[in-house]
Amino acid sequence: MMTIMSSQFQPVLDRIMAEIDRTPGRGRSADYIPALAARDPRRFGMAVAELDGTVYGVGEWRQPFSTQSITKVFTLALDLAREGDELWEHVGREPSGNPFNSLVQLEYENGIPRNPFINAGALVVTDRLHTRTGDAAGELLSFLRAESGNPDLGFDEEVAASETAHGDRNAALAHFMASYGNIDNEVPVLLDQYFRQCSIAASCADLALATGFLARHGIRADGGRLLSRSQAKQVNAVMLTCGTYDAAGDFAYRVGLPGKSGVGGGIIAVVPGRCTLCVWSPGLDERGNSVAGVAALDRFTTLTGLSVF
Amino acid sequence: MMTIMSSQFQPVLDRIMAEIDRTPGRGRSADYIPALAARDPRRFGMAVAELDGTVYGVGEWRQPFSTQSITKVFTLALDLAREGDELWEHVGREPSGNPFNSLVQLEYENGIPRNPFINAGALVVTDRLHTRTGDAAGELLSFLRAESGNPDLGFDEEVAASETAHGDRNAALAHFMASYGNIDNEVPVLLDQYFRQCSIAASCADLALATGFLARHGIRADGGRLLSRSQAKQVNAVMLTCGTYDAAGDFAYRVGLPGKSGVGGGIIAVVPGRCTLCVWSPGLDERGNSVAGVAALDRFTTLTGLSVF
Amino acid sequence: MMTIMSSQFQPVLDRIMAEIDRTPGRGRSADYIPALAARDPRRFGMAVAELDGTVYGVGEWRQPFSTQSITKVFTLALDLAREGDELWEHVGREPSGNPFNSLVQLEYENGIPRNPFINAGALVVTDRLHTRTGDAAGELLSFLRAESGNPDLGFDEEVAASETAHGDRNAALAHFMASYGNIDNEVPVLLDQYFRQCSIAASCADLALATGFLARHGIRADGGRLLSRSQAKQVNAVMLTCGTYDAAGDFAYRVGLPGKSGVGGGIIAVVPGRCTLCVWSPGLDERGNSVAGVAALDRFTTLTGLSVF
Amino acid sequence: MMTIMSSQFQPVLDRIMAEIDRTPGRGRSADYIPALAARDPRRFGMAVAELDGTVYGVGEWRQPFSTQSITKVFTLALDLAREGDELWEHVGREPSGNPFNSLVQLEYENGIPRNPFINAGALVVTDRLHTRTGDAAGELLSFLRAESGNPDLGFDEEVAASETAHGDRNAALAHFMASYGNIDNEVPVLLDQYFRQCSIAASCADLALATGFLARHGIRADGGRLLSRSQAKQVNAVMLTCGTYDAAGDFAYRVGLPGKSGVGGGIIAVVPGRCTLCVWSPGLDERGNSVAGVAALDRFTTLTGLSVF
Repeated sequence: MMTIMSSQFQPVLDRIMAEIDRTPGRGRSADYIPALAARDPRRFGMAVAELDGTVYGVGEWRQPFSTQSITKVFTLALDLAREGDELWEHVGREPSGNPFNSLVQLEYENGIPRNPFINAGALVVTDRLHTRTGDAAGELLSFLRAESGNPDLGFDEEVAASETAHGDRNAALAHFMASYGNIDNEVPVLLDQYFRQCSIAASCADLALATGFLARHGIRADGGRLLSRSQAKQVNAVMLTCGTYDAAGDFAYRVGLPGKSGVGGGIIAVVPGRCTLCVWSPGLDERGNSVAGVAALDRFTTLTGLSVF
Repeated sequence: MMTIMSSQFQPVLDRIMAEIDRTPGRGRSADYIPALAARDPRRFGMAVAELDGTVYGVGEWRQPFSTQSITKVFTLALDLAREGDELWEHVGREPSGNPFNSLVQLEYENGIPRNPFINAGALVVTDRLHTRTGDAAGELLSFLRAESGNPDLGFDEEVAASETAHGDRNAALAHFMASYGNIDNEVPVLLDQYFRQCSIAASCADLALATGFLARHGIRADGGRLLSRSQAKQVNAVMLTCGTYDAAGDFAYRVGLPGKSGVGGGIIAVVPGRCTLCVWSPGLDERGNSVAGVAALDRFTTLTGLSVF
Repeated sequence: MMTIMSSQFQPVLDRIMAEIDRTPGRGRSADYIPALAARDPRRFGMAVAELDGTVYGVGEWRQPFSTQSITKVFTLALDLAREGDELWEHVGREPSGNPFNSLVQLEYENGIPRNPFINAGALVVTDRLHTRTGDAAGELLSFLRAESGNPDLGFDEEVAASETAHGDRNAALAHFMASYGNIDNEVPVLLDQYFRQCSIAASCADLALATGFLARHGIRADGGRLLSRSQAKQVNAVMLTCGTYDAAGDFAYRVGLPGKSGVGGGIIAVVPGRCTLCVWSPGLDERGNSVAGVAALDRFTTLTGLSVF
Repeated sequence: MMTIMSSQFQPVLDRIMAEIDRTPGRGRSADYIPALAARDPRRFGMAVAELDGTVYGVGEWRQPFSTQSITKVFTLALDLAREGDELWEHVGREPSGNPFNSLVQLEYENGIPRNPFINAGALVVTDRLHTRTGDAAGELLSFLRAESGNPDLGFDEEVAASETAHGDRNAALAHFMASYGNIDNEVPVLLDQYFRQCSIAASCADLALATGFLARHGIRADGGRLLSRSQAKQVNAVMLTCGTYDAAGDFAYRVGLPGKSGVGGGIIAVVPGRCTLCVWSPGLDERGNSVAGVAALDRFTTLTGLSVF
């Protein structure tokens, strides 16, 4: 691994921003959630957080956006911290090899989702966290506020309502897994918890900071331990193999970092032991990942040599 | 990443060997290839090679075994070195989410295999390398001999004949892809090339050395460059996400290194910039990976902290 | 086709009953609906109704049982009578080639179920009939009462409640199709309608009479027309190719009549232009069809020559 | 069933011909077999054969065309006559619910094809007939010559060669089933037998006559018995449920007769106890059935009332 000085992060971000601005073709914003459909695909922000909480940023790095599936990482960590390996009896950790909301593999595997980052898997994790805390979404929000140091983070009620109104696919997944006995809570309760988590709005700075515990081998911003060293490594491994829908292989190939994307256009990424990143741009490719976001991370690892490979 | 001194490799290997010897339940040796079926699942060897070619070993680390699918890594590198990114128009780089010889996904994706490490993908890579060299298996053997410094490496004719006799599944895959225009050579010619590659016998020491170029960012044992720095990173990424059949997620979760297994019981693994490993034990789990091999690599990364995460 | 005198129906039924009573191995009663699980698989009844309403019977041919999926035939006919061919834009008429509640094919075909007799297809038909009548279940009950001449037919509330409590799989199907825009009513409303239809209790005599319109080329018991001659033929065709879950080919091969089974153990069958049959025995084979029921129909067609082939 | 006088067959055929000639849109001829691609989709012929061998015809009813999959019916009957029910341990009799050359279901069902009329199933039947006779294709040709009374029937070497050259899909199917132990002969030998059968050229008159045994409950043209009454009924049942690729339900719905189509544009159909039909027109719909052929049979059953339903 090349050595990069922290003082170099800002020039690298500036250079990426300049190159991205000249890139045509930014994909399209998500249209299945009406509240997200109007976002301009040319918007862009990026932040890097060091282990000590120092943050560098460029573009709209302080602009809140809809986190969507990015929150699946935090829900996974919060539940894993509570129940440990028992979770893995209810959700797998293998790539799905299918579009992100497929029911096919779920049927062939008797209601056990392939991993915690496809929608079915995230529903299971939320269900279990909710059983253990009585308020999965609240637990998540508290965690994100604490790690980012931003008490203003909150649910976006417009987005949550919009998802609920278009939530038949997720309702189908939840009922289907319930038919196999893999859901504990009532389906409407679970869906409410799930959609509220997805609706949280946060900025690149917020999310880069909140992801810090994965670069610090499980240690939270306040020095307390959320995950064991081994568990932190495991969450990173699941992100690398399953974090970007059906493009995990391509993401590993191009970027080479554990990462998790959301259809709001955000992507978080981890350089274990070194730093965390978050990039945002609402234009998506056909697999649901931010076009400019992946390009920016690709450029970052090329310029800095900070890949895990 | 913790710091580990090279002088610590031998004690770590000795400790792993001692622990493995006390482990009951070693799985079963592969039985679909008669020539492999008789291997004792309790046999074990392991080697670590440093970047400069220094090798440490334990158990039967100098005992040749059947490399099988491990050779897919080298064939991929050899073809990628020749044709570059054009290869990726003929084979994907996403995890398959299905058992290793499935035809299902191949049909849904019009004859383009998901990645170079499922059998279908390896057939495509072999086909293309054979078109470019006129002797894919010979090219591979020369490479392995040169990198391992072992001129005695050779094909195991008994194993190759055994695979040919039981090769209907691979013949089906090859004809199926040919029906989509994704195979250039005659199917019997291709199968002969493919089975000969799989039949190569090599030891843990040989394979740890031969894998060195992936830890040296593309540089061969003699200092020449096989792959660009970026290509070496990419091969490592494909290994991490697709290298252990339908257990890539589990392997990343437990071991956290790019790796590739074979049904002969061997597994190679890469610590980029640091060292390469090869472990062998013929007892397989239900997904085709060596039980003791995965356990030994898991233990190695735990003891040394040498994971990519 | 051989000629059989009506006076021969009773002796044929008596003979079948005698043979069936000596048959060991009757399968198991459905256990996914608790209210059905306790039924004794050795019970047996059978009725034949001529076109003029004369009924012959044997065993427990006047014993009400849970009609379950048999009602799908009547709901199909009632909706087809109202909306005609437009229905076929929302549900197919091809065999499914998969177990009866599979989600797989539904996903590959964008929310259009393969035929009206798999659960997904029946949900669509019920949904459409409910939109047109405001009370699909009530419409069905009225029809069955009128055709059977039995005003005591009614819903079995215990069975309906039991299905609702275990209805996650059907809820998943309904939400899934709703996500494709192929369901008009609210899912809970639809499920209530659907489960009430399935819960109707009726006897072999009732159902043989109610099926009469399909042997009379669309003419109801009172002489009025429900379906055109062509539509009646079409419903028979769908029954023959899709009426017995994943055993339609086997049923056609052995019995050779349009038929429809239910997990309550009943089966109706049609000899166009001649008579209708209903048989009941709660022991099911692994595909959900009554073991003694299929055997009795097989015997009936062999003894009388009354197959369509 | 309405009564129709034999003297009415000719006027019905004439009327159908007149209507068909005014129908625009005839689909496209098969293009995956080059030798078939050039056929004019507007060509049309149709024949009806009575039980006694009297034949009525219209259009090009004496013009030989490529029988293709139609021969699967005769191969099935010839093998069933020899080995009886044992055949059904090697091939199923359920509709496939998938396009005609799908490998998916074959994999899920361990190398047992769904029915004898998908390519995989026909390969198994041919394989078994070849084992029993030493010359499956010759056996078939002899049978067709005898039943049609036409000694000039023969293989079309151009078509057979063309299929062999484009036969990778069938080679894949055969090797795949061989990997499950469900093929006895060497794959190249089997494919040669299979393609020769498909290449037989025959006219509507020839095929209507050759199909006669299925309307005569198993009796051949010379009065000898090929199949038992029960077996003849069973072959008709398999034709009705599986005879027209993924359109069997639609064919039953529209035509209501046991039938079998081929990509050469021919379709045979059976009115048990009454007559047999063959229609030919090379323009195919997207599921591989003759557009004008299905329309003509639909019209025939509507005009005569000769449906099984």
